[in-house]
Amino acid sequence: MKWPITTIGFDADDTLWHNENLFEDYHRKYCELLSEYHDAKTVERVLYETEMNNLELFGYGVKGFTLSCIETAIRLTNGAIKAEEIRNIIERCREMLNHPVELLNGVEETIKTLNRRFRLLLITKGDLRDQERKIAKSGLARYFDHAEVVSDKNVEAYARVLQRSQTKADEFLMVGNSLKSDILPVLELGGHGIHIPYHITWEHERVDTPPNEHESFYELESITQLPQLIDQIATPEHA
Amino acid sequence: MKWPITTIGFDADDTLWHNENLFEDYHRKYCELLSEYHDAKTVERVLYETEMNNLELFGYGVKGFTLSCIETAIRLTNGAIKAEEIRNIIERCREMLNHPVELLNGVEETIKTLNRRFRLLLITKGDLRDQERKIAKSGLARYFDHAEVVSDKNVEAYARVLQRSQTKADEFLMVGNSLKSDILPVLELGGHGIHIPYHITWEHERVDTPPNEHESFYELESITQLPQLIDQIATPEHA
Repeated sequence: MKWPITTIGFDADDTLWHNENLFEDYHRKYCELLSEYHDAKTVERVLYETEMNNLELFGYGVKGFTLSCIETAIRLTNGAIKAEEIRNIIERCREMLNHPVELLNGVEETIKTLNRRFRLLLITKGDLRDQERKIAKSGLARYFDHAEVVSDKNVEAYARVLQRSQTKADEFLMVGNSLKSDILPVLELGGHGIHIPYHITWEHERVDTPPNEHESFYELESITQLPQLIDQIATPEHA
Repeated sequence: MKWPITTIGFDADDTLWHNENLFEDYHRKYCELLSEYHDAKTVERVLYETEMNNLELFGYGVKGFTLSCIETAIRLTNGAIKAEEIRNIIERCREMLNHPVELLNGVEETIKTLNRRFRLLLITKGDLRDQERKIAKSGLARYFDHAEVVSDKNVEAYARVLQRSQTKADEFLMVGNSLKSDILPVLELGGHGIHIPYHITWEHERVDTPPNEHESFYELESITQLPQLIDQIATPEHA
């Protein structure tokens, strides 16, 4: 059965532009900073633990991540870390927030093509100001009907977004790199999902069982394949 | 001329619930922490400078404020501050985020009364997750058509909120404790504003010239006076 799509939602980080590579790069430097105290594996483990403990309170985004990095550094050095090194952690936070937005290959042409036939929404989670800044820097804002920054991408959040944009779930397709955040909650609501993995997946976003057999689910290697797939799977009056 | 109000927007922090008192309390403890290095006045001045330098990048909210506190402490002690003291600063951040929401006097009855006759919006700025948590804890969410967390309360942000909720500016009344964030941008759009000062105003929110002569502006001492004022100033078909 074809999908009666009218509206396509796009995730942003690692779907439209690079993001996780910045964190990976940061993690490497962070492990170096603490290398005289612990091996990289221990540092990564304790940092992830701290992040998960703080997630409910701090939410997603660079500022909460930075606070977790400072906390972890103090804990792993039993307070021996120097103030100057903590200052460097905050400086790196600033660098990450100031980093240019680098679009993935083919993103702009794809979005432009789809914009002619569908209503496009940008749906992302994280720090409100940071996400708004990245949307502005990306130059893509003009192709989207509007952008929604949510604090978490769960079923309730998508239900709210669909309600506010007066979109029925079965007319909605979500495209993103995270099965957990972009695909599973949308399928649960009765929408459709296309997964385009990024080459790095944050541990927290991993899922054990991808919905491979689900009739409303596809996986692609690149966003440039999206218009062609949509031609095939969406009903002709929309595609 | 009476105002043809259909929709009332409410600010949240220091309009519906106490907030600035938490920061004031925090500032006192922070100045104590640094008292062996500098007097309170210097600490306050340098903290405010750091906050203003970081505002564009970090935005409003407890996490950005905490990063500014850590940075200021390192700067003011020339790096002599102990890691344990920095850990305490992060612990206080957690306490602020976890703090119960305390409604101002008469808020719930007032909102309930107005909810029968007007569409109510909650419009607040700051950390997305922190604001959502406070809205949930307040128990007031059910009286509002919806809540908008914006990264800054300027003319563009209000224009977007009005557009998305399909409200004409002259049918919109905003109620809040900050002339700068809640009143002036709304008046500029052609809407109406009622200012209800909180007993503490953050330096950054102060304005030199209140719009006392503006025909779309009133000031009240307490939110409990709001229904009566609206009866007087809104057109009868709405009030």
